[in-house]
Amino acid sequence: MHHPACIRRFCHLSSGPVKLAIVGGSRGAAFLKVLAPLADQLQLVAFCDKREEMIARWKEDRPDLLTFTSYEKLLECPDIDAVFLATPFTVHAEQSIQALRAGKHVLSEVIAATTIEECWALVEAVEQSGLTYMMAENCLFTRSNMMVAQMAHAGLFGEISFAEGGYIHDVRHLQHSSDGTLTWRGRLRRDVNGVVYPTHSLGPLAHWLRMHEPNGDTLESMTCFVSKEVANHSYFRELFGDAHPGADRDYWRQGDSAVALIKTRNGVLIQLRYDVKSARPIQNAHYGLQGANGAFLSGRHKDEDPIVWIGGRSPGVSPQRHGEPRAEWESLWTYAEQYEHPAWRKWRAQAGNAGHGGSDFFVLDEFSSAILEKRRPLIDVYDAVMWTSVFPLSVLSVETQGKPVKFPRFNRTEAVRAPGSEA
Amino acid sequence: MHHPACIRRFCHLSSGPVKLAIVGGSRGAAFLKVLAPLADQLQLVAFCDKREEMIARWKEDRPDLLTFTSYEKLLECPDIDAVFLATPFTVHAEQSIQALRAGKHVLSEVIAATTIEECWALVEAVEQSGLTYMMAENCLFTRSNMMVAQMAHAGLFGEISFAEGGYIHDVRHLQHSSDGTLTWRGRLRRDVNGVVYPTHSLGPLAHWLRMHEPNGDTLESMTCFVSKEVANHSYFRELFGDAHPGADRDYWRQGDSAVALIKTRNGVLIQLRYDVKSARPIQNAHYGLQGANGAFLSGRHKDEDPIVWIGGRSPGVSPQRHGEPRAEWESLWTYAEQYEHPAWRKWRAQAGNAGHGGSDFFVLDEFSSAILEKRRPLIDVYDAVMWTSVFPLSVLSVETQGKPVKFPRFNRTEAVRAPGSEA
Repeated sequence: MHHPACIRRFCHLSSGPVKLAIVGGSRGAAFLKVLAPLADQLQLVAFCDKREEMIARWKEDRPDLLTFTSYEKLLECPDIDAVFLATPFTVHAEQSIQALRAGKHVLSEVIAATTIEECWALVEAVEQSGLTYMMAENCLFTRSNMMVAQMAHAGLFGEISFAEGGYIHDVRHLQHSSDGTLTWRGRLRRDVNGVVYPTHSLGPLAHWLRMHEPNGDTLESMTCFVSKEVANHSYFRELFGDAHPGADRDYWRQGDSAVALIKTRNGVLIQLRYDVKSARPIQNAHYGLQGANGAFLSGRHKDEDPIVWIGGRSPGVSPQRHGEPRAEWESLWTYAEQYEHPAWRKWRAQAGNAGHGGSDFFVLDEFSSAILEKRRPLIDVYDAVMWTSVFPLSVLSVETQGKPVKFPRFNRTEAVRAPGSEA
Repeated sequence: MHHPACIRRFCHLSSGPVKLAIVGGSRGAAFLKVLAPLADQLQLVAFCDKREEMIARWKEDRPDLLTFTSYEKLLECPDIDAVFLATPFTVHAEQSIQALRAGKHVLSEVIAATTIEECWALVEAVEQSGLTYMMAENCLFTRSNMMVAQMAHAGLFGEISFAEGGYIHDVRHLQHSSDGTLTWRGRLRRDVNGVVYPTHSLGPLAHWLRMHEPNGDTLESMTCFVSKEVANHSYFRELFGDAHPGADRDYWRQGDSAVALIKTRNGVLIQLRYDVKSARPIQNAHYGLQGANGAFLSGRHKDEDPIVWIGGRSPGVSPQRHGEPRAEWESLWTYAEQYEHPAWRKWRAQAGNAGHGGSDFFVLDEFSSAILEKRRPLIDVYDAVMWTSVFPLSVLSVETQGKPVKFPRFNRTEAVRAPGSEA
């Protein structure tokens, strides 16, 4: 195959690091500090934000960067190989498709799209471009989640039956500006009701379940139930008074706690909880796993160790017959010597300083490596849209009082999922 | 009103403690040791078990007891006021109805019934008898669950939006005798698939949500998804070889992890997880609660404190704006001085020695007090059948691939639920 994308890739290999533009300055800034150790494979060359004050702030730190207030202008620039979209997720699909059509590789922050139609359009744009698309789901790459992946793939948990994830993070203050005007997050809570932000919860589970592998498991059907709204209207009333429309409970479609139950093609049950409004300590990294031979459970908060029990290795037996020792959890970290992920072993010094538990580092590493090595990234467009589609499909389920909905089969060309098959 | 039941009750009041018969010796034995401090209100006078060897064992400890191998004969005995059914739950409804028709008060172990038809028949039998029926859901009465009830009812969590419970306890060894013959539990796993044992998870949540109060909230609709079976067939194969029918995965209808999502009439989302097969440490007391002003979460195992966060009282704020202190959990026990339930304050010395975290003591106390004080017990027949109906309705939902099902309104005569209205 000698279509233009292949030639472009070959150019990368011979000409050094991938030249990257970051689009969106608020979230994008978190990635600046992890770039140094990746200098051989990834070079930040440009920055784009429609806010002039954000451009000015970045210019102070990085006067060397090309800057753009127009995304379209950026896409016309021939000195940029790839874009990293750190913009509101409502525009991710549109911006990704624009970039792919302009010949740029795309690293998109989560989530990849907001409708099933956008998901399909994104898949088509990637397939037609032959370029690399990756979704930047950093939770896959945390130290504990990577270690659990190693253990799951080594078979320690046995055949897996159940996996759960939870994203619980009170970010009500991000829904409005200081005068009470709604931001895009606020408008989302006003307009839709479901598991709107599923990939932090689902991504690691999909990795443990090998969904990214050729002929891997896939999401099949889902139901979603959501509680009533209690947290937002009281918050808006307190902050902006009764005159603000958000002081009315009925103004908000999104309930406080949303739970989706998903059955996979292979019969695994996945449970996802989503709550970005309730008053409580953060738990944006709740995970659990159950197999025929053991279980994993994350801490209730950051000061608690994640725990595991592995039959034949951890203390006690299950089931516990009369007189036998009771099964007792162990700290996940006691398994680090044997099951620390090789990437974490190698890069821990560098990654430890990055945001999101070091995982931002691995996102950029994986994206640029996939481009340079001409292979599919760990989170390709099929993974991205499968996980992302929980948003529109959960909304649909809620609108029909929890009726189960089927997932589309986005991986319609199975061969594309095989590692290296794109080359 | 002077129907026979009222006269019977008056007799109790004038003639001293309720005379109780325990039916079913395995589980029933756990209650023997909590009887002493209740001597003024409850007196064990009889014991029934169809197994002669169980009768003999009880006779050794308590030669004073009347003993029966026939339940029908026991019901004919005029010296018995009440029966405590500690039998397999598949016969609870039938035995309860028999007892009520014979003029005996009934304390039934969980669950109360196995079909919706049995639920209705039980409600009718209680209403027609005018006698006291209580379901012995002891998890309501644990120290932490009673304290959370006090805090929830005092409004500390604000308006409640979400509650969760989990019963995870590997009891695969109770499914068979030593020769591989299935017990009633084994036959259940073989024949049905759903949240078969819901009341330990649901009971405390219903109490926190005030479902037991007049015009209280009620369960409205439910979906149930269940994972595939992985744990049982490998267990039976290992123990009894390939020739045992249970060594075949398809022999078992019950999947390993079942999750039910329930919406209440008032819009609260309830999540119940049920798993009695997976290899892992026990967690038969998982609970969580989320309101507009705070949250509660049980420990992952018995050595962890349950934790709470209450807005305006616990450290930090939620949402956490830039520069503000992060919300931090507190141990539930730091609230004991103010919110320990009065019953636990009073009885802790006695109850501390009873089974199930002391809660068995409170079950017997509540049952006998309700009879003597002529009031409805905390868990009356309407609560019992509402919680219990999760079993047959979840099975129905699973059979239709997770289609939501509506709950019947068992409390068809609302007035009966008012405290004291039976007198």
